[in-house]
Amino acid sequence: MIIGGGFAGIAAAHALKRSNVDILLLDRRNHHIFQPLLYQVATAVLAPSEIAAPFRQLEAKQKNLSVLLAEVKAINPAARAVEVICPGVGSRKVEYDFLVVATGMRPSYFGHDEFARFAPGLKTLNDAETIRTKILSAFELAESTDDEKERARQMTFVLVGAGPTGVELAASIAQLVSVTLRKNFRNIDPAESRIVLLDGGARVLSTFAESLSKKVARRLDKLGVEVLTGVKVERVDDQGVIAAGERIPSATVLWTAGVAASPVIKMLGTTMDRAGRALVGPFLHIPEAPEVFVAGDAAAITQDGHPVPGVAQAAIQQGRFVGRLIAHRAKGRKDGRPFRYRNKGNMAVVGKNFAVLEVGWLRTGGFLTWLVWAALHVLALPQLQNRFRVQTQWFWSYLTGQRSSRLISEAPRPPESR
Amino acid sequence: MIIGGGFAGIAAAHALKRSNVDILLLDRRNHHIFQPLLYQVATAVLAPSEIAAPFRQLEAKQKNLSVLLAEVKAINPAARAVEVICPGVGSRKVEYDFLVVATGMRPSYFGHDEFARFAPGLKTLNDAETIRTKILSAFELAESTDDEKERARQMTFVLVGAGPTGVELAASIAQLVSVTLRKNFRNIDPAESRIVLLDGGARVLSTFAESLSKKVARRLDKLGVEVLTGVKVERVDDQGVIAAGERIPSATVLWTAGVAASPVIKMLGTTMDRAGRALVGPFLHIPEAPEVFVAGDAAAITQDGHPVPGVAQAAIQQGRFVGRLIAHRAKGRKDGRPFRYRNKGNMAVVGKNFAVLEVGWLRTGGFLTWLVWAALHVLALPQLQNRFRVQTQWFWSYLTGQRSSRLISEAPRPPESR
Repeated sequence: MIIGGGFAGIAAAHALKRSNVDILLLDRRNHHIFQPLLYQVATAVLAPSEIAAPFRQLEAKQKNLSVLLAEVKAINPAARAVEVICPGVGSRKVEYDFLVVATGMRPSYFGHDEFARFAPGLKTLNDAETIRTKILSAFELAESTDDEKERARQMTFVLVGAGPTGVELAASIAQLVSVTLRKNFRNIDPAESRIVLLDGGARVLSTFAESLSKKVARRLDKLGVEVLTGVKVERVDDQGVIAAGERIPSATVLWTAGVAASPVIKMLGTTMDRAGRALVGPFLHIPEAPEVFVAGDAAAITQDGHPVPGVAQAAIQQGRFVGRLIAHRAKGRKDGRPFRYRNKGNMAVVGKNFAVLEVGWLRTGGFLTWLVWAALHVLALPQLQNRFRVQTQWFWSYLTGQRSSRLISEAPRPPESR
Repeated sequence: MIIGGGFAGIAAAHALKRSNVDILLLDRRNHHIFQPLLYQVATAVLAPSEIAAPFRQLEAKQKNLSVLLAEVKAINPAARAVEVICPGVGSRKVEYDFLVVATGMRPSYFGHDEFARFAPGLKTLNDAETIRTKILSAFELAESTDDEKERARQMTFVLVGAGPTGVELAASIAQLVSVTLRKNFRNIDPAESRIVLLDGGARVLSTFAESLSKKVARRLDKLGVEVLTGVKVERVDDQGVIAAGERIPSATVLWTAGVAASPVIKMLGTTMDRAGRALVGPFLHIPEAPEVFVAGDAAAITQDGHPVPGVAQAAIQQGRFVGRLIAHRAKGRKDGRPFRYRNKGNMAVVGKNFAVLEVGWLRTGGFLTWLVWAALHVLALPQLQNRFRVQTQWFWSYLTGQRSSRLISEAPRPPESR
């Protein structure tokens, strides 16, 4: 049983393709998403379905896999059973021989959950559409109002957290306002928007080398993004943020800072770190039960004294490792070597034509790195069709500066007749 | 001032492009949609943004046009003023010299508004996503449940109304269940779904020639759609429908029957027909005020004893007529000839490889007609980019049977921090 169809869950399922096991893949949503491009859905470059793939298609491709759309209610490792709730149907007990928990992370507000309703994070397609609607609506409101202060507030975008997501989102918003929305309004000039990227740390992209942080900060400055580092956010409310004692009025505050593990990890009853991740051993299972694995961002793993980062590459490697290990055990073999993360390099993209790359001793950034970034991301997308679609979108967007998903979504009607 | 950015509103604005007037285009949404392909969004073939174009891009192309995202609260033809509400900003009075009301139609439940929550209509992108989510969720629930009756109810789809939308939706659902979802489930076979198309009239596509209705009915039968004509729906509730005294248990009832004019028409204080359409004169203005026009589906026009149909072609022609007439008047010229609808032909598509066409004395249907239908619809899409996108999607979908927008949408978080 695999809980969660992100990078780690899918990799585990895939690694078990030729194994004589029955796999149940459980997820709350009906689709896998390609998280690295989620920020482009949030900024109207891509349509939600272009970075998504329905889990059910895996059933057609992999005979030993079943998919269940459900939420986890409780896990009982002693009884090797999970209680799940299928929405609209009810709860049910599922027994397992091996359990892979790959439920990933969610935004964490460091004990300030009251910030959540004013500052959405970016983890799901729904988050991305919420953010897209917020950004596009802000310009509509700025265009409609006669109140200068309110107009300035609507045209101020604050991103809390200057990790990869914060940097990528800020740069993408900067290009949206200066290129895509140009000449699209009569009363305002979107290019006059203020985009503020806040971080409590000393520099942007703190997990990258310092030289790359500097490059990225310069690039952000060139794009018109105000970077404020060493600044703690004290409050987020309906008027904006208070950071370092000063209020920044803003109608669009986005949370790209902390993340915490999904509450499913807690159900395992194992030791967790401060972010709620499970402290798994070298074979990625919890100490209490060798048949219960945690893979992906929700697993806290230390290697050579450093934590294994919560990036897609690490999640895929962990998922694959767990899948193969289960395949071994199913054949009655013993566990081989423990998990080792092989860092194939970190990348971050900063708008058009610029990305940074850190791999081994190499630290580089610029246009060529951006081309590599684009090629790698297109190739990594799920489903061949999505590769064509995203490629076409990027090409068109690159040439014209237009973005093709500028929709302000309405709240859908609730599905009442179940 | 133009209220409504559908086919008629956009055509009116376009016809005034070179005129010495200031145009205010008002709409509740930020995007124009290409209604003829809305059913393909509802059945996961196309992504919402592929048939949409943001109004604001028109501002960059047309200097004399402004866009306002607002709802109409009241119209005062005597004072030549419209009171509008900009969401999040407040209400405002806008004065006009000429008013074009092009607000179109909405689903009408023939006095049974209580059906609405159980049987969504298909008029907006939001409707399409609601329907898509309903259809895809039904299969998830059918897969999860152990209750045979409930499973059958989840796998029964009832469409009320066998006009073009009902026929197109039914055929598209039929191909979804028999091709796209094949082998995607373990406990159910989606191909065993029941798709019922109900109509109170004597035949499907009653506005088409009888020979074509017969062709279409045969085709629907071949696709596995049960067509029940001469059947009145007495009740729609959370368990399904009651039609002709019999209950059809169904979790997905879709309303493709009646439409009524938007309530904005009522604000004009002019004579309306039973469906709430304005009875305009030969120059498409209301009798009470020669500067107030109604164009598109919301205008009731009789020509040679027949009503002008509520189709895209007629809306475009009316919008263009009104735009040109206003351009004339702005130059101080008199109104020329009255409006005349030129029927360029009616088409309806029934799944893959089959469409029917009626133009002049010609009545035809089949594969070639379907090719013509596809070409015409791709060419008519707003934005060059959307033409590429839809073409690519269709090509891929045609070859593989896959559909690329199989997303079950979640309710987005409300935008709280305005």
